[in-house]
Amino acid sequence: MLRTHTCGELRLTDVNQSVTLAGWVQTIRDKGGVLWIDLRDRYGITQLILEEGVTSPDLFARARTLGREFVLQATGTVVERKAKNPNISTGDIEVRPTALDVLNPAKLPPFLIEDDTDGGDDLRMKYRYLDLRRNPVRRNLELRHRMAQQTRLYMDGQNFIEVETPVLIKSTPEGARDFVVPSRMNPGEFYALPQSPQTFKQLLMVSGFDRYYQIVKCFRDEDLRADRQPEFTQIDCEMSFVEQEDILNMFEGLVRHLFKSVKGIDLADVPRMTYADAMRLYGSDKPDTRFGMQFVELKNASGDVDLTSGKGFGVFDSAELVVGINAPGCASYTRKQIDELTDWVKRPQIGAKGLIYVRYNEDGSLKSSVDKFYDEATLKQWADRFDAKPGDLILLISGDAGKARKQLNELRLEMGSRLGLRDPNVFSTLWVLDFPLLEYGEEEQRWFAMHHPFTSPKPEDIPLLDSDPGAVRANAYDLVINGTEVGGGSIRIFNRQLQSRMFSILGFSDEEAKAQFGFLMDAFEYGAPPHGGIAFGFDRLCSLFGGADSIRDFIAFPKNNSGRDVMIDSPSTISAAQMKELSIATVKEAK
Amino acid sequence: MLRTHTCGELRLTDVNQSVTLAGWVQTIRDKGGVLWIDLRDRYGITQLILEEGVTSPDLFARARTLGREFVLQATGTVVERKAKNPNISTGDIEVRPTALDVLNPAKLPPFLIEDDTDGGDDLRMKYRYLDLRRNPVRRNLELRHRMAQQTRLYMDGQNFIEVETPVLIKSTPEGARDFVVPSRMNPGEFYALPQSPQTFKQLLMVSGFDRYYQIVKCFRDEDLRADRQPEFTQIDCEMSFVEQEDILNMFEGLVRHLFKSVKGIDLADVPRMTYADAMRLYGSDKPDTRFGMQFVELKNASGDVDLTSGKGFGVFDSAELVVGINAPGCASYTRKQIDELTDWVKRPQIGAKGLIYVRYNEDGSLKSSVDKFYDEATLKQWADRFDAKPGDLILLISGDAGKARKQLNELRLEMGSRLGLRDPNVFSTLWVLDFPLLEYGEEEQRWFAMHHPFTSPKPEDIPLLDSDPGAVRANAYDLVINGTEVGGGSIRIFNRQLQSRMFSILGFSDEEAKAQFGFLMDAFEYGAPPHGGIAFGFDRLCSLFGGADSIRDFIAFPKNNSGRDVMIDSPSTISAAQMKELSIATVKEAK
Repeated sequence: MLRTHTCGELRLTDVNQSVTLAGWVQTIRDKGGVLWIDLRDRYGITQLILEEGVTSPDLFARARTLGREFVLQATGTVVERKAKNPNISTGDIEVRPTALDVLNPAKLPPFLIEDDTDGGDDLRMKYRYLDLRRNPVRRNLELRHRMAQQTRLYMDGQNFIEVETPVLIKSTPEGARDFVVPSRMNPGEFYALPQSPQTFKQLLMVSGFDRYYQIVKCFRDEDLRADRQPEFTQIDCEMSFVEQEDILNMFEGLVRHLFKSVKGIDLADVPRMTYADAMRLYGSDKPDTRFGMQFVELKNASGDVDLTSGKGFGVFDSAELVVGINAPGCASYTRKQIDELTDWVKRPQIGAKGLIYVRYNEDGSLKSSVDKFYDEATLKQWADRFDAKPGDLILLISGDAGKARKQLNELRLEMGSRLGLRDPNVFSTLWVLDFPLLEYGEEEQRWFAMHHPFTSPKPEDIPLLDSDPGAVRANAYDLVINGTEVGGGSIRIFNRQLQSRMFSILGFSDEEAKAQFGFLMDAFEYGAPPHGGIAFGFDRLCSLFGGADSIRDFIAFPKNNSGRDVMIDSPSTISAAQMKELSIATVKEAK
Repeated sequence: MLRTHTCGELRLTDVNQSVTLAGWVQTIRDKGGVLWIDLRDRYGITQLILEEGVTSPDLFARARTLGREFVLQATGTVVERKAKNPNISTGDIEVRPTALDVLNPAKLPPFLIEDDTDGGDDLRMKYRYLDLRRNPVRRNLELRHRMAQQTRLYMDGQNFIEVETPVLIKSTPEGARDFVVPSRMNPGEFYALPQSPQTFKQLLMVSGFDRYYQIVKCFRDEDLRADRQPEFTQIDCEMSFVEQEDILNMFEGLVRHLFKSVKGIDLADVPRMTYADAMRLYGSDKPDTRFGMQFVELKNASGDVDLTSGKGFGVFDSAELVVGINAPGCASYTRKQIDELTDWVKRPQIGAKGLIYVRYNEDGSLKSSVDKFYDEATLKQWADRFDAKPGDLILLISGDAGKARKQLNELRLEMGSRLGLRDPNVFSTLWVLDFPLLEYGEEEQRWFAMHHPFTSPKPEDIPLLDSDPGAVRANAYDLVINGTEVGGGSIRIFNRQLQSRMFSILGFSDEEAKAQFGFLMDAFEYGAPPHGGIAFGFDRLCSLFGGADSIRDFIAFPKNNSGRDVMIDSPSTISAAQMKELSIATVKEAK
């Protein structure tokens, strides 16, 4: 090794030892007769000290020519520091070099290699290898490594076998858009990159592997947003001879293990909520449960409450749903603040028609934007229903039930953020259960699988498949942490007839179903066990554990929003010869 | 869970317990009044017993209708077996069912789900999910899982960080053929799938990650042979601030750990040999060192030996090299056997012009196929050089040195096999060092990197880069086990000028080098540490540990020799709409 110790290793007990370190020059401080060099590697920083009169003049002169990020090998003696630095692990000592070797000089980096850098996004993506030197980014990837380690430790301990499934598979029309790979040996044909190893893990269950997992790359050719990448990583799992309860327990165990081993947090039992309740109470199938502010309905379609009709307020009278949240302590909001909030919910992204407020003043009086229609007694009724207290502010949205809930969900999250109730270092988990099996695509005029076509309906709902497909609940579940879906899965269909019926409901002809998934339906006839599984979005889980919003800095070499790796400049054109070998040609788009 | 125990779990201590098992019907034996069912899962086999008069008549009748591979749930009581079966872990007990539930019936499998199956290759590939049920295949994948686990354990223990590198990267002209992926968002452009994460792991070293590893899928669009797959898995590693010796020690440690933890074998120190010696002594850069039979030269180009010239045998007189092996105990080979061996080396795949033998008879006399030219005294001289003993058979090949060595290598391996010296359960390891940096492509009339363009020449050989490129040795090394290259790597270039010079030697123009690898050469200017690494072929390593020749049964879902997955029928055509979105078209080959 070109070093005897790392830059994070030396302590007081090493004083007087002769050591060789190697690393990067973080900083050089030149105070006339004394030079301090902070030498950095992955493990820490060690201070080198050179003093005129003590260090050889030649060495001292050479040290002065060093620049930031030079790769340096330093041999010298460990000495106790006069001014200790309690902020770093090596802060008790420093090294007096007797030899310095520049292993590689460095040009001035295009941005500061420090925790707070002056580099913009584009520059940091282009020089990703320099950005990765910064502590926060490096720590993210170290966290990711620990998460993967601990995941494997848990899964191995539960008798799961890690099996690698293929990357070159077959394109299927269901789901998101596939990336495809032309086959040279089979001209005119293409492989597809997997959106998930779904069918393969199910086949492994048919094979009797019993418990499978894999930390695996998956691919979706979708338009990208800040938190989406064309290639992403899943913790992919499947178990045989299980019911939903078994999967929930097993993977609650995984999440508990990760919180404990990586964050030192003892996770409480993960609460459970049906999809229907989540939509009713939060307007979302992935509610952020770090804070309350559950929805309260003043009028709904089922008619079990109506505290708004018949008072002459047409907006509420004609609404399917009048629903609100109680923002605690927000009675102090000024008219201007409320107007600003109203504008916020009326933005096209949210699309509310308006926002009604009821202010529960500290003196116990109530003031609302609909005082014209509702007297204080009615407002008091409303406030009671919200369990509001003096000082609170009730915010109401009305209209079509689905839309109103979606809009109020956005408002609730916004108010949670404004009230500081969404601390990224507080973790609140939730299982959302009993998802609908199907959702209707208005545009395509057909049913789509809400999870995927292999999800089992609840046995008791199977009779509804023909009469009321939208009411069929699935044996499907999502794990939600802090309002983010970090994992989802289902108990699978394992019977050919039912699988075939699902494909038919999804608009596949028999021929299409056979051509695409015949192998799976065949497999179900050769002794398929009951099975189910789950997949966690690993990038997302890591970013959540890291307390960050974006997954990008938890991926070593991410792509930008156009799917480009700007560092290596990919994708790029390929040669005509390559295309000829692959029997393909590029086609200019007709504009 | 649909079971209380697995089928490999119950013991005598469980007698009288009520249990529920679930698994596959392996066999049913019906002996009139008694039915035995072997119920199988991943963990083992448990025998169920049903007896007329004891078991309810209804249950007994139903049990008779079960077929092989039915998925069965059985509830009953554990009882001690009368006739114990020491061959299985549950052989002391059996279960008397009080309830049997067919969870899924099964059609008759197209081949026997037994250790020795009657299924041919094609059928087993098509029904891979059934082939995976067989013990030998399942055990291979369990072995693979353990190998991966133990690899991670070792690497984690040595402070390596597992970092995921991207799968959608950039096509480069050097090396094997790339698989490419058209980019929808960047029309006319393509990603490539990585042949290895080479440049990314080097960038991670530039980033200061210090020690990186990954068990990672790689891709090569090459014509396939039995032991090659278009997608394969590497244990990919890189370290900073190291010299060759450090890498050899670190990864000898990994291999030693794997042998110990997976096979229970204490591996001796791995011997080392230069490439030059390996070629001279074995005619191969991956010699099988399970057996001796090293090459002995009777005449060579350096002239340090010539025991053949001037005796009138033109074949030897005109040969650059006369080289042979001593096959111990083979003097008993008949003339017919030797003729057959001669035909074997003359086959086009090997291409020898002929084979000369010297038989060292048990009585001490010597008999050769060149008795016309060489007297017994000369033959004795040869025999002494070979250290041959009475009873041995010397086999000689001559001609161009390179070709003769290659041919003799094949013959040596063949003789090793015939003599039973290549036991797959005996392991012999070897580091091969000091590979040439470059090899000349006669067809292309240019130099190629023997390892890859990032391999560092030995510093002392750099002056030869211009004068005698073929003589430049690389800081490159291969780990060979039983004649198979299981891993290879090198110390890398980390200096822009040298890297640029390498590209120029390889025929890249400055522009090409910049366009393809500019990011890496740029990175070298921002403080790149000395670094090196290695990659192991994980599929191959697993098959070697499993004592098998083919990697195919150590991959869950392999492709056939045409790159097809016959189970899912991939690759396949994609829709015109998909191609339009991707701005590509297929082109019919002009025949």
